[in-house]
Formats: sequence, structure tokens, C-alpha cells
Amino acid sequence: MAGAAAAVTRRAATLLLSSRFRTPASRVASLIPIVGACNRRFLCASSVSARTAEPAEAASQLGETVKDFRKRLRIDEVKGGPDQGLDWVGKDLTVRGWVRTCRVQSSVTFIEVNDGSCLSNTQCVMTSDAEGYDQIESGAVTTGASILIEGTVVPSQGAKQKIELKVTRLVVIGRSDPTTYPIQKKRATREFLRSIAHLRPRTNTFSAVTRVRNALAYATHKFFQENGFVWVSSPIITASDCEGAGEQFYVTTLIQNDTEGNNFNVSKIPTTKDGKIDWSQDFFGKPAFLTVSGQLNGETYACALSDIYTFGPTFRAENSNTSRHLAEFWMIEPELAFADLNDDMACATAYLQYVVKYVLENCKEDMEFFNTWIEKGIINRLNDVVEKSFVQLSYTDAIDLLVKSKKKFEFPVKWGLDLQSEHERYITEQVFGGSPVIIRDYPKEIKAFYMRQNDDEKTVAAMDLLVPRVGELIGGSQREERLDYLEARLEELNLNKESYWWYLDLRRFGSVPHAGFGLGFERLVQFATGIENIRDAIPFPRTPGSADF
Amino acid sequence: MAGAAAAVTRRAATLLLSSRFRTPASRVASLIPIVGACNRRFLCASSVSARTAEPAEAASQLGETVKDFRKRLRIDEVKGGPDQGLDWVGKDLTVRGWVRTCRVQSSVTFIEVNDGSCLSNTQCVMTSDAEGYDQIESGAVTTGASILIEGTVVPSQGAKQKIELKVTRLVVIGRSDPTTYPIQKKRATREFLRSIAHLRPRTNTFSAVTRVRNALAYATHKFFQENGFVWVSSPIITASDCEGAGEQFYVTTLIQNDTEGNNFNVSKIPTTKDGKIDWSQDFFGKPAFLTVSGQLNGETYACALSDIYTFGPTFRAENSNTSRHLAEFWMIEPELAFADLNDDMACATAYLQYVVKYVLENCKEDMEFFNTWIEKGIINRLNDVVEKSFVQLSYTDAIDLLVKSKKKFEFPVKWGLDLQSEHERYITEQVFGGSPVIIRDYPKEIKAFYMRQNDDEKTVAAMDLLVPRVGELIGGSQREERLDYLEARLEELNLNKESYWWYLDLRRFGSVPHAGFGLGFERLVQFATGIENIRDAIPFPRTPGSADF
Repeated sequence: MAGAAAAVTRRAATLLLSSRFRTPASRVASLIPIVGACNRRFLCASSVSARTAEPAEAASQLGETVKDFRKRLRIDEVKGGPDQGLDWVGKDLTVRGWVRTCRVQSSVTFIEVNDGSCLSNTQCVMTSDAEGYDQIESGAVTTGASILIEGTVVPSQGAKQKIELKVTRLVVIGRSDPTTYPIQKKRATREFLRSIAHLRPRTNTFSAVTRVRNALAYATHKFFQENGFVWVSSPIITASDCEGAGEQFYVTTLIQNDTEGNNFNVSKIPTTKDGKIDWSQDFFGKPAFLTVSGQLNGETYACALSDIYTFGPTFRAENSNTSRHLAEFWMIEPELAFADLNDDMACATAYLQYVVKYVLENCKEDMEFFNTWIEKGIINRLNDVVEKSFVQLSYTDAIDLLVKSKKKFEFPVKWGLDLQSEHERYITEQVFGGSPVIIRDYPKEIKAFYMRQNDDEKTVAAMDLLVPRVGELIGGSQREERLDYLEARLEELNLNKESYWWYLDLRRFGSVPHAGFGLGFERLVQFATGIENIRDAIPFPRTPGSADF
Repeated sequence: MAGAAAAVTRRAATLLLSSRFRTPASRVASLIPIVGACNRRFLCASSVSARTAEPAEAASQLGETVKDFRKRLRIDEVKGGPDQGLDWVGKDLTVRGWVRTCRVQSSVTFIEVNDGSCLSNTQCVMTSDAEGYDQIESGAVTTGASILIEGTVVPSQGAKQKIELKVTRLVVIGRSDPTTYPIQKKRATREFLRSIAHLRPRTNTFSAVTRVRNALAYATHKFFQENGFVWVSSPIITASDCEGAGEQFYVTTLIQNDTEGNNFNVSKIPTTKDGKIDWSQDFFGKPAFLTVSGQLNGETYACALSDIYTFGPTFRAENSNTSRHLAEFWMIEPELAFADLNDDMACATAYLQYVVKYVLENCKEDMEFFNTWIEKGIINRLNDVVEKSFVQLSYTDAIDLLVKSKKKFEFPVKWGLDLQSEHERYITEQVFGGSPVIIRDYPKEIKAFYMRQNDDEKTVAAMDLLVPRVGELIGGSQREERLDYLEARLEELNLNKESYWWYLDLRRFGSVPHAGFGLGFERLVQFATGIENIRDAIPFPRTPGSADF
């Protein structure tokens, strides 16, 4: 072991693409077993042997000190810079990743390796004198195999990249049988890829969507944190009656298959004497559901901490199999205290511009990929969102505009009826030429009970932010903070006032004008990537009949 | 309206603590209605009237431009600086918040206002000549009321703060009846406060916990993002058989109360002919559960994108009413590709040190509050975590150490038995003097099937990170990446191999050594705040019999 370690040290890359260890000695220790044993049976460093190799760093009497954590050097850091990697020429590098393609030519072999950090592969050029060339000859270097490659960065002969890696050593870490590996070069359908949701992030499209989704999430946190909002986790399970029945999932322990997975006999469900479910024996002592929105809970914290936001999963047991609906999706719901609808619209606009700008600046390569392969022109469309002023107009004006357009719509246009997708798209795409539009002050009959009544007594201070292609991306409102108005509205709608006791308390004790909005995160991912089906905007989509993985 | 606006303009604060608008004109517009109408019936700016007041900014033909969003100036930005607000002396300020106390003395009245941005109140000093003094006389300025105060920053006479606000104008926005407002000056019990979870963030303790919780969450994202990890949302609902039965919540639409809330008759549940539940008619076509961990899903993405982390809710239907258990809690689960247990321990250590350091640096005032009122010495304890090297020792060494201690434990100490809380606390608190300790290489019989077997064939590459007071904070392992080992282990444990087809696929196609860990976020909040009961570490705790709000 020690001899092998020394041999590796002499050859060792000065920069190890994936090593997290500090000292050269421990770098070697981390390399040896992974490298040495992997050739045959996918073995790698057992932690025990790795530890044995480093007795020098043992701490005092008892135990040892934990190693320092180091950021892993990734392909995007080498190739993603302004020089596209040219500043790395002459340096030694170790790449760990998955083989995208391996082309064996008469004199050289080209291996494209991807580590998931960016769309770009590292092109590795290998000649027969390099260590591990027998792996090429044996056919082990196939699409999907995981490998480790050591080499020297050289300028590339090809037009597609500035640099490539001249291989000195190749090790196959994990093989991938080309006859059974489901992701082959020929393009697979999205439907098929959904059936292998565990492997689809290894494709260009899904790795790019994952990175953009990540960037949107982080930008969301950055925006709100930089503006003084506090993240609040609204509850997922709720027995609150406020949520209202219908389209909710029940959460229960009253039904349980046994540990062998045998089906549950309904006769075992505890009932009251009239044959109804005895909820008092359920886990929470009453019916409990998966939340459909964290807004009401969010309001309680806004009425204490001023500005808050939630970012968590929400659920709809809606039996709709469309490209726009998920049974489980993530929502972002900010709530602003001492704020009215104007503040709310300003916040929604600033938020959307911020996250879109963040993605354009931080996911350039992925966005170019979407621009070429998924939706031509998406970069321009998003640039417009960042640069253009958003327009707001009232629902009443929007209806006027639609009526005056004399355009034939499938659904009727009439004051009091909700706007349909075709109307919304006409407004953003035709009237405002692709610019996002906010429609505000909707008739109270078509909006939720908690929205603040306007002085005209017919409309409420609601707003919907519409974007081209996706339609409604954000929906928000100023909340009714006047106790008497809110109670009257609950009565009008035959809602049980007692259920809302805590929500009404916010209006009893130090009530403040406040407003907020909700944004379906997967819709935002669709909007920013051009991905057509919402099932491709979340890692593991849940839809009617489908909750695998 | 115009006259009133002008009057306010003359008097207007140059800095409006809470105004988001850009131009002085619109600032006034936002003030007028909120201020003007609120005195009597909690009215505030309807968006319609606010818009009417600003016709000058209407855009071109159709609609208007949305206003610019501005960060709200908050009390912590005034008082939280190095000068504790002295740099603001002489400036005009508008504060919006909730009254903590109001003390009427013969010549002056002291009002303490809090806006939730920090623990500190703003002390407002008001004399009878200030506008709105009638509100004091009428008794409207009570604990819990929301108010707006305009005034000038002056050096404070008191010892508790450097500055105070000399009030020129007071407006009560929302009253709070002192006879019914549940949060009075005398200290309420934690149990009572849990019953008013919608109001408890208005107390010092819970607003501080909320801010620290927020800081820990943001620091979590920052740490992983800065180190190249990608956030992945693992699914909440899962029909995957991998999770195993028991202690899981079922998610179903087979039982549903009707829209009037009338109880469901069990005879309506669809059954097969032998009286068992017919899962094929459920929403997902088979039994579905709330996830207990996102790890297996996380591994699929790590085996494509290299380093990922999840941060989302997880669930246990465990009937334990303790101060350490929740039915719904948030988990952070990073997964590192091309990594072994040493990398995993290094990552866990670096992560914990990072987030603790972040809180110590960014939540100074809140941490001093905890240090004084919740857990004396917590700041020193956390400083130790940041500064000390973490020690690791093997499970075998830990057992040796416990046996040799000759200490009488309640639970037996023997190789092969799991460590109990008393053992863990003895190790961290007694043996290592309050330093976090990682125990590694546990017997495989007491650990999960997916953990990587060590060369000794008796232990697995698992690790638990123990901290004083809380005990196990992080649990992780290197995952078994060798297909044959993993399949053998599934068979040994009588687990159904077919259920794990996709998990096994990761070992079939380009398998890589990988490792990860899980951290219960509420345990981290407990650890960082000293809060004793985990129900006080999350806004709306879910426990057996309790899912209100």
C-alpha cells in the first residue's frame, strides 16, 4: 500500500478534481483505495482502511480529529470561467464523472466525461500508452459508466471546446452495461424518461432543469433575505377547518397495511355506532389534511415579524391530468405587513425580475441550451421580463379591452366572469407584446373570502400576474384586515366563523394592513426553462395514479 | 385629500420606516389613507383610492406601471448598527409596529414599539402636545395594539438604549383590547403559548427563535450553494415500497368527509371482494405515504449531479409525546458523490460550524437573549463548536471507553447494542468536555441496510455526530455502492428486492462511492437556541392529538 501510494504521489495531479482532503498524504489515501480496488469489483475505499493509512494525524489520546472539508473542484469551475479553461493549460487535473460518449479511433480515443456541475463535458483524449488503456480495449468505458481520469490540460484541437484533457491514467469506477443502460445516445421521449425518474437527471435536459431550478430556489431565498423577510415553515399537515373540504388529501393512521404489506380490512377502521369513521382515534384526534396553502399561517407570522415568506410543498387532490397540474408542488408565499396592494404588486414584480436576472447571469450555459433545444427565443423573453416595466390594469379595464378587441374567444367575456387562459394570453401576448401584466381589482364573487374589499363594494384588492406562455404565474391580494368586514364576508359565504377564530384574532389584536402573494414554484421553473410539461419541472412528479420513486 | 397630503408632506419624515415607495409623492399617497382612515374603524388605504391619488404616474394608454419595490427600513437597521442608532440622531423617522408597553407618566408617556425585525423595541417619548395624544388619553395605546409613530431620533436618557424617538405624531392602526389580549406582561407558560401559536411570535422568546431558525435555514442554503451542492426537492408523498411500513402516515382520498363536514361512512370505502381496501381506486392507484426521508431519492440525483442536498419536511407517525419528537419536522439531507465516510464527516463538521458561526455573527442580540433567559452559557458552548476540532472515534472504542469508565448506566453497555442517550451524553459532556464527537463504524445489525459494509464484515461505515445536551444531531453513512453487497444485505433482511429496483439501478449503471447525512432541522434550532421542547422550535408543531392552526 505504501509503495503504491508513493507511486501515485509522484504522478499525482497537483489539482484533484474532487478531492476534499487537505494534505497531499491524505489526498493519496483517498485516492488509493478508490482507485486501486475499483478495477475489478467496484470496490472503493472502505473508511476503515482509509483511516489506517493516516495514523500520523491521530489526535491526542482518544479518537482522531475530523478532516477539513474542502470544496470539490468541479468541471464548471475549470471550463466555466471567462477563458473557458485556457488558464488551466499545463496543469494536472483529476476528473471524476460519468461517461457520455467514448469514441475509439485508430490512434486516439475520445472520452466525454460529465460530472453534473454543468452541461459541458470534459473531452479526454487518450492514447494507447496511457495507464488503464486496457479498460478501453475491454469495452468497459461505455455510456453511463463512472470513471476517474487523470491528465494534463491542453488546448483543444476541436471547435467545440477550448481545452481538453490529455489522459495519463484512466480508472473505471462503476461499469454500465450498454445493452441494458436505458439512456442511450438516441433521444428518449419525455414520457419514457418520466418512467426512469431516477436516471433522467443524467440527461442534458434534466440536469439543466435541475440546475436552473436550484438557482431559482436560491435566488428566491436571497431576494427575500436581502429584503428583510423571514422564512417561516407553514405546516404541511393541518387539522384546521379553515382549509375547507374538497381537493384535499387526508392524512391518517386509521388505515395501515400490515408489516408484510397485506391489505387492510376496512372492518378494522374504528367507527362510531352509526358506522361513521371515529376520527377521535386517528393520530391527530380529528380529520387531518395536507395543506393547500400556507398563507393563513403565514399571516400570523407577518402580524408579528412584519415581512415573512414561506417556501414549502403544498398539495391538491385534483383529478386533472394536464401539463399544468401536479398533486404535489412547491409554493412561495410572502406576506408583507403594513402593506397594500401596490406594495404587493411592487414586491411580486421585483421578486420575479430578481430571480429571472439571477438565472440569466448564473446559468448562462443552461439557458443557451434551452434557447437552442427547448424554446427558441427564451433568453430574449426573459431579458424582456428583467428590463421592461410591468403594466398593471384593473379587471374592469381588462374586460373592456377584451370586449373592444372584437376577437372571438371560446369562453364568454363579461364583467363578473373569471378570465380564462385564452383571455390572459391575449392580453399579455397580443395587447402588451409579451410583457408581463398584472390584472387587479377583481369582482369579489370570483375571489377568496380573505381578500380586502375595495371602496366600490364590488371588487377586491386582488392581483394576478400574467406572463406569456404560462399565463397566471403569481396570484395575490391585500388581505381584509377589518374585523367587521371579514366576519360579514364569512357569514355571506356560509363559512363557519368559529373555525377561523385564530385568523380573526389577527384582526382583533393589533390588526394591520397586509398583503401577500403565492407563486407555484414549478410554474416558475417552466417559465424560466421553457419546459412544456410541469411533470418535467420537479424531480419526482406526483399526479393521479403516479407516486412512484 | 390633496390638502391633507400636502400637510403630511410638510411634516413628512425624510426617512419612512416602512415605506417602500420611491418618490415623496407616492410615499405620501401610501401614508394618507393608512394613516387617515385608521383612527376610527381600522380602515386603511384601499388600493383604488391609493391609485386615484397618483394619476401623474399612469403609463401610456393602457394600464399603469407597477411601482418600484423598496426594502422596508426596519428597527434593526436603525438600532442594530455599531453606533446602536446614534448615527440617526436628528433624523426624522416613521415607525410601524406593535406596542409592547405604554407607560403614562405625569409629564411624558413612554411607548415601546416592536416591528419584529429585532428583539429591541423603539422607545418613543411623547408629550401631550404631540398629534394623536388623544389616543393615549382614550386608552387606545395598549399592549398588542398596532401603531404608526412619526418622530425625531434623539439620544436617550435611559440606560437601556442609546436612542429614542421624540414623537411628533401617533396613529393607532389596530386596537388590542387589554381585557382579552392573551399576551400580557406577566410571563405566560410555554404550554399556554402553544395553545395560541398564532400569537406567540409576538413574544420575545418566539420572535427570537423565529429569527434564529430563519438564519439557520439561510446559512444552510448558503453553505451548500457555496460548496457547489444543488438543492433537490425529494418527494413528500410516496408510493414507493422502499420506505417500509410502520410509523408512516397514509395519504388517501378514499376517505373524505362531505363538504358540510359530515363524517364519512366507512361503508363507502371501495373494497375488494374479501373486504380489504381496494387501493387501485385511491388517488395514486396504490397505498401512498408521507415520506420519512428523502435520502434514497437524493442518492439518485447525487449519482447524476455529484453533490446535492434536500431541505424539506419529513414525517413520523410515532406515538411519542416527548420534548424531542415531532410528527412533522424538516430535514436537511446532503449526498456527496465520489465521497467516503471521511468526506462525509468532514462535510457534516464544516456544515455545523458554518451555520453556528453564521448565527453567532448575525443574531447577536437574539443569542444574548437566549444566553440570559433560556440557557446560560449557550454562546460559549456554540463558540466551542465553531472553534474546537471535532473528535471522531469508532463505536468499538466508544464501547471500550464506556466499559472502562466503571460508571453505572441505566442501559447496558455491550458491543452490538445501540448507544443510549445517557451514553452519548457521557461521551460528549464528560469525556470530551462539551465538544462535539463523531462515533463511527457501528455494528451492521443496528444500522440501516444501505450502509456500506466495512472490511471487518461486522461494522458499517456509519457515523453519528453527538453534541452536548441534544445528543445525536446528525446521522450519516457511506452508502453501499457495490451491487452484490447491497443485494445480499436486502436478502439477509428479507426485504423485497423488486421494490428497490431503481435504487439498485444506481449500482448497476455507473455506480460511485457516495455518502451523506441527515439532520433534523428542529434539533438544530434547539441546539442553537437552548429551547428545551422541540415543539417550540417550529412555528406550528404537529404531535399526537395536535394539528391545530
